[in-house]
Amino acid sequence: MSSCIGENLRVSLFGQSHSAAVGMTMEGLPAGFTIDMAALQRFLGRRAPGKNAWSTPRKEADAPEFLSGLVGDTTCGTPITAIIRNRDTRSADYGAMKDIPRPGHADYTARIKYGGHEDAAGGGHFSARLTAALCIAGGICRQYLAERGILVTAHVAAIGGIRDEGDPLVSVEGKEFPTLSDARGEEMKALIARLRAEGDSVGGIVECAASGVPAGLGDPIFGGLENRIAAAVFGIPAVKGIEFGDGFAAAGNTGSGNNDEYEIRDGQVRLRSNHAGGILGGISDGMPILFRAAFKPTPSIAREQRSVNLATGRETTLQVPGRHDPCVVPRAVPCVEAAACIAITDALLGRRREIDG
Amino acid sequence: MSSCIGENLRVSLFGQSHSAAVGMTMEGLPAGFTIDMAALQRFLGRRAPGKNAWSTPRKEADAPEFLSGLVGDTTCGTPITAIIRNRDTRSADYGAMKDIPRPGHADYTARIKYGGHEDAAGGGHFSARLTAALCIAGGICRQYLAERGILVTAHVAAIGGIRDEGDPLVSVEGKEFPTLSDARGEEMKALIARLRAEGDSVGGIVECAASGVPAGLGDPIFGGLENRIAAAVFGIPAVKGIEFGDGFAAAGNTGSGNNDEYEIRDGQVRLRSNHAGGILGGISDGMPILFRAAFKPTPSIAREQRSVNLATGRETTLQVPGRHDPCVVPRAVPCVEAAACIAITDALLGRRREIDG
Amino acid sequence: MSSCIGENLRVSLFGQSHSAAVGMTMEGLPAGFTIDMAALQRFLGRRAPGKNAWSTPRKEADAPEFLSGLVGDTTCGTPITAIIRNRDTRSADYGAMKDIPRPGHADYTARIKYGGHEDAAGGGHFSARLTAALCIAGGICRQYLAERGILVTAHVAAIGGIRDEGDPLVSVEGKEFPTLSDARGEEMKALIARLRAEGDSVGGIVECAASGVPAGLGDPIFGGLENRIAAAVFGIPAVKGIEFGDGFAAAGNTGSGNNDEYEIRDGQVRLRSNHAGGILGGISDGMPILFRAAFKPTPSIAREQRSVNLATGRETTLQVPGRHDPCVVPRAVPCVEAAACIAITDALLGRRREIDG
Amino acid sequence: MSSCIGENLRVSLFGQSHSAAVGMTMEGLPAGFTIDMAALQRFLGRRAPGKNAWSTPRKEADAPEFLSGLVGDTTCGTPITAIIRNRDTRSADYGAMKDIPRPGHADYTARIKYGGHEDAAGGGHFSARLTAALCIAGGICRQYLAERGILVTAHVAAIGGIRDEGDPLVSVEGKEFPTLSDARGEEMKALIARLRAEGDSVGGIVECAASGVPAGLGDPIFGGLENRIAAAVFGIPAVKGIEFGDGFAAAGNTGSGNNDEYEIRDGQVRLRSNHAGGILGGISDGMPILFRAAFKPTPSIAREQRSVNLATGRETTLQVPGRHDPCVVPRAVPCVEAAACIAITDALLGRRREIDG
Repeated sequence: MSSCIGENLRVSLFGQSHSAAVGMTMEGLPAGFTIDMAALQRFLGRRAPGKNAWSTPRKEADAPEFLSGLVGDTTCGTPITAIIRNRDTRSADYGAMKDIPRPGHADYTARIKYGGHEDAAGGGHFSARLTAALCIAGGICRQYLAERGILVTAHVAAIGGIRDEGDPLVSVEGKEFPTLSDARGEEMKALIARLRAEGDSVGGIVECAASGVPAGLGDPIFGGLENRIAAAVFGIPAVKGIEFGDGFAAAGNTGSGNNDEYEIRDGQVRLRSNHAGGILGGISDGMPILFRAAFKPTPSIAREQRSVNLATGRETTLQVPGRHDPCVVPRAVPCVEAAACIAITDALLGRRREIDG
Repeated sequence: MSSCIGENLRVSLFGQSHSAAVGMTMEGLPAGFTIDMAALQRFLGRRAPGKNAWSTPRKEADAPEFLSGLVGDTTCGTPITAIIRNRDTRSADYGAMKDIPRPGHADYTARIKYGGHEDAAGGGHFSARLTAALCIAGGICRQYLAERGILVTAHVAAIGGIRDEGDPLVSVEGKEFPTLSDARGEEMKALIARLRAEGDSVGGIVECAASGVPAGLGDPIFGGLENRIAAAVFGIPAVKGIEFGDGFAAAGNTGSGNNDEYEIRDGQVRLRSNHAGGILGGISDGMPILFRAAFKPTPSIAREQRSVNLATGRETTLQVPGRHDPCVVPRAVPCVEAAACIAITDALLGRRREIDG
Repeated sequence: MSSCIGENLRVSLFGQSHSAAVGMTMEGLPAGFTIDMAALQRFLGRRAPGKNAWSTPRKEADAPEFLSGLVGDTTCGTPITAIIRNRDTRSADYGAMKDIPRPGHADYTARIKYGGHEDAAGGGHFSARLTAALCIAGGICRQYLAERGILVTAHVAAIGGIRDEGDPLVSVEGKEFPTLSDARGEEMKALIARLRAEGDSVGGIVECAASGVPAGLGDPIFGGLENRIAAAVFGIPAVKGIEFGDGFAAAGNTGSGNNDEYEIRDGQVRLRSNHAGGILGGISDGMPILFRAAFKPTPSIAREQRSVNLATGRETTLQVPGRHDPCVVPRAVPCVEAAACIAITDALLGRRREIDG
Repeated sequence: MSSCIGENLRVSLFGQSHSAAVGMTMEGLPAGFTIDMAALQRFLGRRAPGKNAWSTPRKEADAPEFLSGLVGDTTCGTPITAIIRNRDTRSADYGAMKDIPRPGHADYTARIKYGGHEDAAGGGHFSARLTAALCIAGGICRQYLAERGILVTAHVAAIGGIRDEGDPLVSVEGKEFPTLSDARGEEMKALIARLRAEGDSVGGIVECAASGVPAGLGDPIFGGLENRIAAAVFGIPAVKGIEFGDGFAAAGNTGSGNNDEYEIRDGQVRLRSNHAGGILGGISDGMPILFRAAFKPTPSIAREQRSVNLATGRETTLQVPGRHDPCVVPRAVPCVEAAACIAITDALLGRRREIDG
């Protein structure tokens, strides 16, 4: 089905851009875990738009209301549902476009799939607005993992051709612009500002690291950490690629250059390098999990684009109204963390007694 | 779970490198579909080792035996199980290595996960031998899709730094070396031969295209074609990355450069370009689906490598015995097709009446 | 997981007796189906308490708010979420009982499972209050099935030892007390009134019929209609048994007496009898589906009962405060219809093209 | 899907009555569990036909071959597949009947579902032959549970109108006829012999008990032990009803008579009675789990029956050839144990750390 993921932790998302609310239900988190609601709100704030020059001015409080699953702020073991009401929506912006699909959006494919019954306003269920619900689920998981010593952090690794520099294990959480190198961040912001002025947009890459993951998480073949994380991360709109460890660069390497050899350090088995991104055979090897997700440029641009009118069958042009980010990548950073946290928590909760006795 | 994938078509794989057999069970394929067994055998032959200079001399007939699900060669609607007996195995090659994990393999992670009970011989369930079972399932799906006008084909897009050239929609099925450009194929074979001589290995990229996919397949958020295909493709050992359409290159592009505009051609809505790789919002848009998977270099190399003895807790070295491909990428081509075919068939069978009435 | 059911139609329930809301998410219903909201409200009204002498005086509007999945009242194809706010709750009634499990309730088992973190107020997620959410999902499915000629109706087949009489295919929808025979209904009401006066409660049986189900729905072995319906119906609190067709009576019959022979009527293949309750090999045979569910007596009774104090480890007695039905069976009638409708819709949506070509 | 069940332990069955083999794949059992193969063979022997006067003379060795998942006889953590080859099949017995559905069998419903492509020989995938595969999976689980102090045992509770007597927790494993009371068993055998002589058959009831189940297994609503056990048990052909604890009798009882009160015994919380069959709110309460399954009479009887010819659309008669049990209930006893063991193991493996910290 479309909007449900996970095996040991099941997360389902619901809502549309302009429906009464977006929300999530999460099942499988153990009873007795206390959510730090202020920290969750801060996490959601990293995704929220409207805070600065490089994102859309649409203002959303993004304050989740928990409908179930808690006693106070503590999980009681049964399904957790939280919603965020949709406010500040402007359906009028979108109504006229129902028959003219915006290039790069899901308008056309949703139209074909749902035969005209789709909720076209603001992208409906395909809207990036749904990542607010993803971030509630992922933000809770992130706290759950942190309590177990697993820290998940991401940063903007690239925007356009500009690449960030630094140690991906370092958190950028407090920063206004989530890069490791502030200098590179300034270059990226300048690029975004220039493209906004040109009525254009730009893509980028988010890199995510999870440190403290114990060896042994994940399952072979289709249940590997790569499978699970990829399945979650492609749930974020605009993601077009994912690579783990050296990823596509490993394809150009030799075995002697790419293999991570073993050593004994502090009495522990360790890997001497991390080309594999912490995953061998789908299972964590104790090194930090490292992956990168490629985001395509925001499809909503101010420039006139060629499209068709599905009602008349004629070619036409459109100019996308509304307010959109020229670059979603900075706001996507917590979304990637959220998707990774959901997948890793799912694997962690799956680590039952694998060994008899 | 580890070895099961799909929602409308459920494929599960079983077996180990040195168990009695490897096999697959497939549920959900409609009744009345006749498998072309000779074509299936040819498809499996593309994956089989031992045929030439650039792969392992281990000889496997890879002739599947169907235990259930057919009347004659025609599906009867209930679960299809087929197995391939394991022959020509040499457990003695592997026995001594049980406590010394091979770098780049799942030996160490399996050991941690299964606490010493794992089947260490030949990689056990993590062995690339399991792709024979994957190819049975995928080969059947490939025929099923072809009967519906959906053609899935892949080629070696790169080995080491050498890139293939040509139209990815063209089939390389009959070729001894699966590149579009024979010249580039010769260069790749020379590179493989050189690395074999050096006791080393090399990675590469497989590109896959599915033409004839109708618009409207796939589901939003976690049920998108990208999610499904990625979850299947990461089930192939050694895959470390996947990208759709322009993928990571899209991250460096602008919206105006990356958006696929619409037009009317021959009375039909068409896209003017295919940066999206045929998928928008997780749903097929009618253009060919295009993706690339990155394979790391074969971890089994002849050179001595540093490892540890898990029984003694001491560092040691090992030289991987046995016979292994210096480059799995050519043999991985049908595996990638198989994984894609499974995911696309799953989405196709899920296309129930989405529209009421 | 606990609160999610279905394969082609996925229904998940969330909420606790005293949480902010109870609700349901339903995924898989085709786009373009218009919900008759007034009819849905009437359906929910059949379950609602507080209407008469034989049920609890707790008053609940049970008016669902739809948060997603609709455009107007029409499904748009993506997940439908609806909630009912909890009002008129009196946690003080329950607080003191947290450590003294009520006999016949899930208090003790929830305590063991969730280690004291369970939401004990009013039974938490185990409360019959959750059937309000079940009835939203089932009520929508009931309309969906009716539009396809499948009519699902249930009645009180027995309360205590008093049995209803009549044709189970006849609807009791408009009736204040849902029996086929009004005379038997009066006897049942008198029995309930007597037991209420005695501070006791009574169980009963609900019989459900689905007419118009086409032959061919359901799957073999674990995917049979019996498996699916049973798995849904046991989701209603207090259900302790289910039987299809002649059920337990068939166990005392002979093959010649129990087999349903075939005939041709009006040019159609028909069965001459319906001992099987419309299901053979898990698959509908075209006859009405018939089943009965046994409900245990309401565990909440006014009489003093023996229990233990889990905090002190000592035996004690308790008198269950709050307001409870002396017999839930009349209100359970729409719940059984709802569960059946969810299971049958799931099977109906699964009836993809089973036959190739 | 049809033939797959379980969440934490996934069991899938494959095969047809006359295909090359029947078999099962089981995923999720921890690594390191050693199967007692002789005990498993004895367990399968309890289901096997051909041993005595009251069952079919068809002889089957039912010796499973393990294809994967073991190292020696010990689980290695990855999917376990075992098959039983089909021998002594006589397709000629069945061929002529392809167009004339046998009353009480799935012939007609399979025909409608699969459009003539079904494997009609011997009932195909709907054959009771599949319970051999069920018993492999369930027999392994039964050993796994026994090692943890959970003993699952069943007996023939009734055949026709004759009821067994005795303590359902007592094992009948060694007995030639699986009743608690040998006297009642003799009566049952006499009844079966009489009905066989009359060319007829008879149904019955199997009662199953699981002792030693710790409190806290199972999940609320749709994940309850009743839901899981029912979904598994209805996977056995001919089951038409299931009830837990007092079941349908509870429907005629009062709350004061049906509630199981609590006490402290030996310092432990215990229930003073077990009307609930060990399950409250879907979750085990520490008392033995008790349930009964109703089996309809074997539909294959020697008497002439009325049917239709689906090819000609005309009414006809048929006499079912082949060799069939006049009563499957004795052989169903291990099948019910197997289904229960699968469901309970699934719940047991799901008991992850429910409580945080």
